[in-house]
Amino acid sequence: MSSQIFPSDVQQSLDLVGIFVFALSGGLLAVRKNMDIFGICVLAEVTALGGGVMRDLVIGATPVAAFTNLGYFLTPLVAGLVVFFLHPEVERINRAVQTLDALGLGLFCVTGTAKAHDYGLGAVAAIALGMVTAAGGGVMRDVLAGEIPSLLRWDREIYAVPALVGSALVVVLIGLDRLTAATGTAAALTAFVLRMLALKYGWRAPRAWHRNGSRTSEE
Amino acid sequence: MSSQIFPSDVQQSLDLVGIFVFALSGGLLAVRKNMDIFGICVLAEVTALGGGVMRDLVIGATPVAAFTNLGYFLTPLVAGLVVFFLHPEVERINRAVQTLDALGLGLFCVTGTAKAHDYGLGAVAAIALGMVTAAGGGVMRDVLAGEIPSLLRWDREIYAVPALVGSALVVVLIGLDRLTAATGTAAALTAFVLRMLALKYGWRAPRAWHRNGSRTSEE
Amino acid sequence: MSSQIFPSDVQQSLDLVGIFVFALSGGLLAVRKNMDIFGICVLAEVTALGGGVMRDLVIGATPVAAFTNLGYFLTPLVAGLVVFFLHPEVERINRAVQTLDALGLGLFCVTGTAKAHDYGLGAVAAIALGMVTAAGGGVMRDVLAGEIPSLLRWDREIYAVPALVGSALVVVLIGLDRLTAATGTAAALTAFVLRMLALKYGWRAPRAWHRNGSRTSEE
Repeated sequence: MSSQIFPSDVQQSLDLVGIFVFALSGGLLAVRKNMDIFGICVLAEVTALGGGVMRDLVIGATPVAAFTNLGYFLTPLVAGLVVFFLHPEVERINRAVQTLDALGLGLFCVTGTAKAHDYGLGAVAAIALGMVTAAGGGVMRDVLAGEIPSLLRWDREIYAVPALVGSALVVVLIGLDRLTAATGTAAALTAFVLRMLALKYGWRAPRAWHRNGSRTSEE
Repeated sequence: MSSQIFPSDVQQSLDLVGIFVFALSGGLLAVRKNMDIFGICVLAEVTALGGGVMRDLVIGATPVAAFTNLGYFLTPLVAGLVVFFLHPEVERINRAVQTLDALGLGLFCVTGTAKAHDYGLGAVAAIALGMVTAAGGGVMRDVLAGEIPSLLRWDREIYAVPALVGSALVVVLIGLDRLTAATGTAAALTAFVLRMLALKYGWRAPRAWHRNGSRTSEE
Repeated sequence: MSSQIFPSDVQQSLDLVGIFVFALSGGLLAVRKNMDIFGICVLAEVTALGGGVMRDLVIGATPVAAFTNLGYFLTPLVAGLVVFFLHPEVERINRAVQTLDALGLGLFCVTGTAKAHDYGLGAVAAIALGMVTAAGGGVMRDVLAGEIPSLLRWDREIYAVPALVGSALVVVLIGLDRLTAATGTAAALTAFVLRMLALKYGWRAPRAWHRNGSRTSEE
């Protein structure tokens, strides 16, 4: 199936890196929420695989990939154990984790869009599912931890817009019949760079205007 | 497929109206929660399409309709933008939005039940899925916004019971082989009128009895 | 299909008992959260059937069993009504409810693992889905009630580990070609006994170490 933009072993390696760093972010939130080792591993699994599971359910690709590829399932457990034993160290390299998370974001929006397209979805739906693949796990992580998803909060740097750009580039490339390992990588890197710039310069999306006396609490 | 109770273009128009007003309610909650433009659009999408997605996943109708029909996907984005730019005006016509939301409730419980029946589900399951179609998006909206779903709260006017009545009428009509555009409309209007009466007269469902000294906190 | 470890009528009876007690726990939480009769029934349904629905969606067994088996759907409603009318009595026999809940845990991790294996999933994925079947409904219950899932909290007795042991035993039995009604029951009882011991002796899972001055709030 053509969702394999990259040679299969390269794809697998990239997927595992993305899954690992997403899982780290889930495990770290679990530690901050004072969860036990089991909660850390569950939140690592959900964060790393949740977006891909949502995509596979929506397009009908069952059994979902997260449960048929052993590496996909075991990697978050490893990340959970790393966080369990080394969380102060992982927190300290938070900057590096954010960078890797941005790489995961770029990679998953590209592969998610390509897979959705392979299953016959149209351009807009494929873009949406690319974003779901990249950001859905983080939403599930926050809901399980009892927080409003950071994706939806105005006071966080933009996360979905970089994924949107990466996914849209993939759709354009498919339309031009130019989706290759090289151009797919370029699309992923574009999303990655946008996310890093958003973090560096504090880019945020606008809120709705609260005019003449409406409530302006900062929540 | 016979889930098309109405001529296909009428069905499509009715669906889009229902999706639009559901999306408005999602967008308004996002504004109240101080979310940014992206959060507004995500909550609009989830509220408008969440119930139908749940139904399609449960019956195995994949890829789900919300991602294969471009109009279904774009309509909530338009509603999100309307809320972003005009939310004080939309709040001001809240009464009209509630009326349209009740229309969406009536419509979706009818079409959801019919679609579930088409996929071979029994009467009770089809009724349940009609209710899920009508109310599921609102539940997802509230969970993402960090609130207990208003559907479950005792201090809100009944919402699911009107959907239950509408869905049950559809199952009876199917059993009698009398489900047509006219009778389907009548079922939807019954649910609509019940919901409007519940709003007007403050109908609420009973809570469990807190007897002799048990906790009676108002939550 | 070989997921029928037990004769079909025995399986059905055991399933209904498990569903009933899971539904009681959902209904009781709804009462504590001051929900109305409808909220009680919704939380009973979600708690009892949510885990199985998640498993069926992931493996692609649609329409999901919870909506094709009338008894599965009606049992939680009965439990919801029992809680509505008799919740002080049900609270008073909380110890008995916990025992029954542990039985449900043991049963569902065994049948969930067996069903996942029947659908072609590997050993690790089948174990994971056994745990999802047993514990997923409780997670959905807590999210809908606005709480952090008790499964993830460090201050609750271990719940998932007994399910993990039961599921792993089933996979070993399948590997040895020894999964029968007798050995399946033994696996379920092992999980049940572990859960009861955890409750009796307050077994909890460890949290990540908060070293030298990191935050140690008890949340």
